[in-house]
Amino acid sequence: MKVLVVLAHPDPASFNHAIARKVLDVLLMNDHEVVFHDLYRERFDPFLWAEEIPVGAVLDPVLERHCTELQEADGIVIVHPNWWGQPPAVLKGWVDRVIRPGVAYRFLEGDSGEGIPLGLLKARVALVLNTANTPEERERNVFGDPLERTWKDCIFDLCGVRDFRRRMFRVIVTSTPEQRRQWLSEVVELVDGCFPAVEQ
Amino acid sequence: MKVLVVLAHPDPASFNHAIARKVLDVLLMNDHEVVFHDLYRERFDPFLWAEEIPVGAVLDPVLERHCTELQEADGIVIVHPNWWGQPPAVLKGWVDRVIRPGVAYRFLEGDSGEGIPLGLLKARVALVLNTANTPEERERNVFGDPLERTWKDCIFDLCGVRDFRRRMFRVIVTSTPEQRRQWLSEVVELVDGCFPAVEQ
Repeated sequence: MKVLVVLAHPDPASFNHAIARKVLDVLLMNDHEVVFHDLYRERFDPFLWAEEIPVGAVLDPVLERHCTELQEADGIVIVHPNWWGQPPAVLKGWVDRVIRPGVAYRFLEGDSGEGIPLGLLKARVALVLNTANTPEERERNVFGDPLERTWKDCIFDLCGVRDFRRRMFRVIVTSTPEQRRQWLSEVVELVDGCFPAVEQ
Repeated sequence: MKVLVVLAHPDPASFNHAIARKVLDVLLMNDHEVVFHDLYRERFDPFLWAEEIPVGAVLDPVLERHCTELQEADGIVIVHPNWWGQPPAVLKGWVDRVIRPGVAYRFLEGDSGEGIPLGLLKARVALVLNTANTPEERERNVFGDPLERTWKDCIFDLCGVRDFRRRMFRVIVTSTPEQRRQWLSEVVELVDGCFPAVEQ
């Protein structure tokens, strides 16, 4: 399978980077084809400008490549910290620009843009791996975990990816090395569950 | 009162810009001191880098000014379209960078960052004005309106701004000029309600 992996965290020494490395390890071990983007390292341009919005707009080559990769992906893995119930801005910019009409969804004929779009992604499964410093109870009772709705319903379900899985690792800031090792084992299981080894 | 107004939309001819102009009109008419940022026009840098994260980090002068304006604001108005249940990336970047520890909130002594922070903003009221192309029923039933939780609970309540008001104007793409005029009258009422004329 072709698997697209997108990471957004500014610190190469972060647990998010450790998660992403583990994701790549498992995917390669299982003989999948992997496309990986570390959006911070690549300084992905997060600005969606007005000229780029219309269906059929001319896209810059970097964006064109991102769109093709998304279209061709059989699976998608997203890794990012929970910042204010949302991803870091650079990943929000990737969503704004790459998950575009004609690539990830389209409106039905006669629809001016207010109707229910048709998902176009062929990816069968999307896995979102998050880190947070907010304890689970507070997230549930006070913040309501907006990331779940955003990735699951607003984005992936709309684009036709029905098998959605997500795991939030917390609390990072007070975690022990042992706890992190345990979490990375969970990452292995999750990725292996979504993308098992290719039969020879 | 000092009122901070932040706008994020790429098209100067957009209804978001019309809303922002109306907000500014009312604030000035009511004799308030206004600080206005059109984040797209200013090309606000949305990248929060690792070095900028710690409390007390040295900030670039542009960011320093944004932080001071946020701290000094007696009221805040945010204007943006609903893109995937979130603001455009540039505004997410403003949140990531400007709403920072030591400016908008702080952790209590002995807290490593996992506890409940103390809000520091002196603003009494925050008003968020959004546009959308999703009908209200679909937003409620399918997407769950993540923007409400994000702005109200994750951001403003955490930073100590308890009086939160929000209005989503929809459906923009199929709206008539008459409908838009009516919406702008609502903007006038909302802003006037939050920030009445200063008594002479």
